[in-house]
Amino acid sequence: MTDFALDLDPTAIQTVLDGRWAEARRQGRSLALDESTHLDPADDLETTRANTLAAVGLMADTKLPMAALPETLGGTNEHAKTVAGFEETVTASPSLQIKAGVQFGLFGGAILHLGNPTQHADWLVPAQQGELLGSFAMTEIGHGSDVAAIGTTATYDAATEEFVIDTPFRAATKEYIGNAARDARAAVVFAQLITAGVNHGVHAFFVPIRTADGQPQPGVSIEDDGHKGGLRGVDNGRFAFDAVRIPRTNLLDRYGAVTADGEYSSPIDSPGRRFFTMLGTLVQGRVSLDGSAVVASKLALDIAVRYGLERKQFTTVDDYTETTLLDYQQHQRRLMPGLAAVYASSLAHEKLLTSFEEVFSGVDDSEENRALLETRAAAFKADSTWMALDVIQECREACGGAGFMAENRLVGLRADLDVYVTFEGDNTVLLQLVAKRILGDYAKEFAHIDVGGAARFIGTQAAEHTLYRSGLANAGRAISDVFTPNLSERRIRSGRLQRNLLETRLEVMVSGLAAALRPAAKMPTAQAAELFNSQQHELVEMARAYVELEKWKAIDEAMREQKDPAQAKIFRRLRDTYGLSLIEKHIGWHLMYGRLPMSRARQVGETLNRLCAKLAANALELVDAFGYGDDHRRATIATGVEAERQAEAAAHYRRARAQRDYPVPEKQLKKAAKSRTA
Amino acid sequence: MTDFALDLDPTAIQTVLDGRWAEARRQGRSLALDESTHLDPADDLETTRANTLAAVGLMADTKLPMAALPETLGGTNEHAKTVAGFEETVTASPSLQIKAGVQFGLFGGAILHLGNPTQHADWLVPAQQGELLGSFAMTEIGHGSDVAAIGTTATYDAATEEFVIDTPFRAATKEYIGNAARDARAAVVFAQLITAGVNHGVHAFFVPIRTADGQPQPGVSIEDDGHKGGLRGVDNGRFAFDAVRIPRTNLLDRYGAVTADGEYSSPIDSPGRRFFTMLGTLVQGRVSLDGSAVVASKLALDIAVRYGLERKQFTTVDDYTETTLLDYQQHQRRLMPGLAAVYASSLAHEKLLTSFEEVFSGVDDSEENRALLETRAAAFKADSTWMALDVIQECREACGGAGFMAENRLVGLRADLDVYVTFEGDNTVLLQLVAKRILGDYAKEFAHIDVGGAARFIGTQAAEHTLYRSGLANAGRAISDVFTPNLSERRIRSGRLQRNLLETRLEVMVSGLAAALRPAAKMPTAQAAELFNSQQHELVEMARAYVELEKWKAIDEAMREQKDPAQAKIFRRLRDTYGLSLIEKHIGWHLMYGRLPMSRARQVGETLNRLCAKLAANALELVDAFGYGDDHRRATIATGVEAERQAEAAAHYRRARAQRDYPVPEKQLKKAAKSRTA
Repeated sequence: MTDFALDLDPTAIQTVLDGRWAEARRQGRSLALDESTHLDPADDLETTRANTLAAVGLMADTKLPMAALPETLGGTNEHAKTVAGFEETVTASPSLQIKAGVQFGLFGGAILHLGNPTQHADWLVPAQQGELLGSFAMTEIGHGSDVAAIGTTATYDAATEEFVIDTPFRAATKEYIGNAARDARAAVVFAQLITAGVNHGVHAFFVPIRTADGQPQPGVSIEDDGHKGGLRGVDNGRFAFDAVRIPRTNLLDRYGAVTADGEYSSPIDSPGRRFFTMLGTLVQGRVSLDGSAVVASKLALDIAVRYGLERKQFTTVDDYTETTLLDYQQHQRRLMPGLAAVYASSLAHEKLLTSFEEVFSGVDDSEENRALLETRAAAFKADSTWMALDVIQECREACGGAGFMAENRLVGLRADLDVYVTFEGDNTVLLQLVAKRILGDYAKEFAHIDVGGAARFIGTQAAEHTLYRSGLANAGRAISDVFTPNLSERRIRSGRLQRNLLETRLEVMVSGLAAALRPAAKMPTAQAAELFNSQQHELVEMARAYVELEKWKAIDEAMREQKDPAQAKIFRRLRDTYGLSLIEKHIGWHLMYGRLPMSRARQVGETLNRLCAKLAANALELVDAFGYGDDHRRATIATGVEAERQAEAAAHYRRARAQRDYPVPEKQLKKAAKSRTA
Repeated sequence: MTDFALDLDPTAIQTVLDGRWAEARRQGRSLALDESTHLDPADDLETTRANTLAAVGLMADTKLPMAALPETLGGTNEHAKTVAGFEETVTASPSLQIKAGVQFGLFGGAILHLGNPTQHADWLVPAQQGELLGSFAMTEIGHGSDVAAIGTTATYDAATEEFVIDTPFRAATKEYIGNAARDARAAVVFAQLITAGVNHGVHAFFVPIRTADGQPQPGVSIEDDGHKGGLRGVDNGRFAFDAVRIPRTNLLDRYGAVTADGEYSSPIDSPGRRFFTMLGTLVQGRVSLDGSAVVASKLALDIAVRYGLERKQFTTVDDYTETTLLDYQQHQRRLMPGLAAVYASSLAHEKLLTSFEEVFSGVDDSEENRALLETRAAAFKADSTWMALDVIQECREACGGAGFMAENRLVGLRADLDVYVTFEGDNTVLLQLVAKRILGDYAKEFAHIDVGGAARFIGTQAAEHTLYRSGLANAGRAISDVFTPNLSERRIRSGRLQRNLLETRLEVMVSGLAAALRPAAKMPTAQAAELFNSQQHELVEMARAYVELEKWKAIDEAMREQKDPAQAKIFRRLRDTYGLSLIEKHIGWHLMYGRLPMSRARQVGETLNRLCAKLAANALELVDAFGYGDDHRRATIATGVEAERQAEAAAHYRRARAQRDYPVPEKQLKKAAKSRTA
């Protein structure tokens, strides 16, 4: 393994990973050093929730939640900073990250983005200071993904200048609401705004939920969701409203206002666009889940790699020396592709944060830029949260029985991260949204420029000419091979080849879907729906191809920026491992569509084996570069105890063998007897 | 969907699935109806453990654990019966299955298979009656997979006719031992047997652990593993021994005995073969985990399918009618391949149980049959436990936020099943064992019959001629296509094609590995180890190819046995979905090695889409056939509440729309205004 090892400086790599908001990350990480932010699986639900709430208070004390506010309210109008700091608190506990996310990101965020200056002054500042605890009540039992169809109503009563909030049936109960079961005093409630006999669609309202002494407000029913698959520190629950009256001024009215006599007005005329604009302001949740999933994956790899570098099992090279786990090819294959994917995702997330900052600080909040941010946030959130579950699970299994013990953290991380794939937008639904956006862009251009639009669209992101710009016309038949017959490992590792394969796959999928779906425009709704449904699986796959390419480009770009030769080389290994993992995953596609000749395709697996061995040689530096210490990992198996125990055992055997009465193995006696007979 | 629906009788399908040990399965299932066997996530660890222990007592009351005993001890020498009954208790809780498995299968099983008649009378009967609680202490902190290398010693002292049990260093502490932390009074402890200055390797000893009043015996240290990722009802812990003396007669001496004056003897001369024979008798654990993983997967699918058939989201065909989840293609794609895999696994498990019964009842306990049983148990256990994690997780995600609530069971099942993939043999290690066995068989034959041995070896399991018997010689270049140019869906669904592809892949992998590894025999150990390591990933893949083929054959066989046309048709759909899912998963391979032309390969995905839609049309009958009721599922979302809530909401909207003052949607007003202007 040492043959492959490069001389790396983990601190320098950390600088690359921590990026522009390194200071906020350090703040988030130091909060996680405070023992009171850690949860004990032995505590009951109530204690766990109380401790998590206390940690949310500590988070408020860091003033990070205030950073997103405008200067007029004591903030610094720095949006990505808050998010970056939040993400790192996953190292304390995902419960803290999520409960804080609900309080500051969703509850506070909704007031910030949907409210007016008076509302900011009244509610936002206390919210970000952790003094006014709140919920974000959007999802209902009956409607999660389809928010537009929620049943809660807010009917304006001009006589009293109040909105009346109602839950008209059980399915309209607000469900899975964080902070609801225990702590929230108020909630931003999403409801159908009805005034003067017209339903203006979903709007957000500030609704007091509990009285000062913690009792439900009159007309508000609260239920506790109780035990979940993880996130024990978050008190999820349900709200139902029975003619709950709130002042007219409790409507968060940035995108829709109602006058005292009940007249509705909005800066956005189209109800559909208005709804999506409102939702779009809440993109921060998805951005931060992308980043948190990366942090959780880093932590898991940090633990599993350290253990894999100490733990030994089975003698292979001689009768006494046991082999270290991470020297086994399969162990490398289990952990190294995940490590590369986490690097790519971390670097891609940094780019997402940059675009998030641009949009929300106002540097570039063009509609196009906003739309791109939303598309990428949805795509990255889906891909990264699934990646986190895969990576953490692989880490847990790679640590064997020790991985299953709560004290080694992996099972807890896995359980907590589980819900990340279905909340803040169900991943499968999000990927369909991404696919539709990509197709929409494609179709718009397509209407004007005929074929090649796919390449054009992708080109706007790729900013590079692609080898294969053709769409489905060429797909399906084997095309002539552009590579030399003797494609060496260096050639199969070519970045140009990787980019071509990833881009071509996306292009062909986009144009293929466009061709398949084009007839839908002229079909009756039901038939069009059926056609669309027949391509749903392909749509989801296409969206994943999009994210994978985006992430690959992020690590490719980072690689190009490295000045230090060893560092450039390790980034290249990471990029190639990520790229070839993707190509291996979809190798059937590349072959089926004639993009990769069979002889070359067979080199991918072996090349990956070698790349994983090379990465393993620097695995310790690569996880050191995540910037976490023992107090972040808090996993017994990652502290060196395993090596200590092995040293103790080895010393015992050395001593024992030196004694005259050390028992001889029967096997050895038999061997000796056999050779005497022979 | 109704177009595809077949007229099926779930009870008749259940008869097929429940198989030969249907009665025992019913017993296990009815035990799970007893509320006291259910665990409450709100209970603390101590209460959960106490309740689980009580449930183990109820299990003893069923007398199922006694069935495995010989007639002389009041049993009926029925081995598979016990296992089948145990498996079904997963529906009560996996904690019960595992704690009972430790007590009756491992502790009792070790005494049964490794002990003598006196030991049976003294310990086995009380164990199976739940009166003598015990542990199975094999794994140590330092050695899990490599049992031969454990550090615990049992040194014979002829002066007192006792064995002295010692834990010479911390890494030799027995670890993750079920029943250890709280309940065990005794343990079967595995230790290096040392007598007269010779170490005869690992043997099993009956060691009292706690006194009658529950205190550790002198010299025994006990630690509690505390919280784990799941299985809260199982009290895992650690044992360490400091010169603990046990009578000579406490050695379970079937495969190795020591006389009063310390002379060792064994019916098996080779220490290596002796060790593997002893371990081989404990194959029951792996057999039962294969079956339990299937039961847990069935339960999860039962819940998710029921919810998927009720839950609606998004209007697609018109403005009012929402689409049912299981009508979405992607939802079908998420759940139906798992359903097919679970059917295949259930039928394959039945065959495994049959061979287990043959070996242990003595009907056919030839060494060859034993070896085959062990290979298949290892292979199936690995594949099925991973399948369970995938299937349960897909089910949990397919239920959205509801899937994350403990009351819907999926997260609990997922958490409990997690450790199944690393205990009773780590899956990755097991698959390497399987691969080595397959290669060993291949090599033995190969030595005599030159090429074609792979086909021969596989043939002994397949009992059918294969289209491609060639090994690596043909691999790599595209071979001429044996199919007609216009391969219809019926042709791509051909069982012959599926079998050919699955068999060929395995054959080529086996012969390829044999060729790659052949030089190892003449290499120095270290170099051979390196060569072997370079093929480790491929070895694991090859073993999976073997299991997949075995499972496919099981469902193919079951399909052929169906007399009822509709039933035969649904089994065909299940077989094809399973087969084509595997082919899709490995499509890159089939293309790379020229086994499937590109044009045909592109049909696989679409055919699978259609098959999933067809299966979805009978999804309810297919899960009904698992034989579970509401009291087994115990998942709120699977009880019909979702449909009730939807009916209530629909009734509300119907009533509301009938009223004159029902608010008009703004969207509708805008549309109307627009058309007036136009």
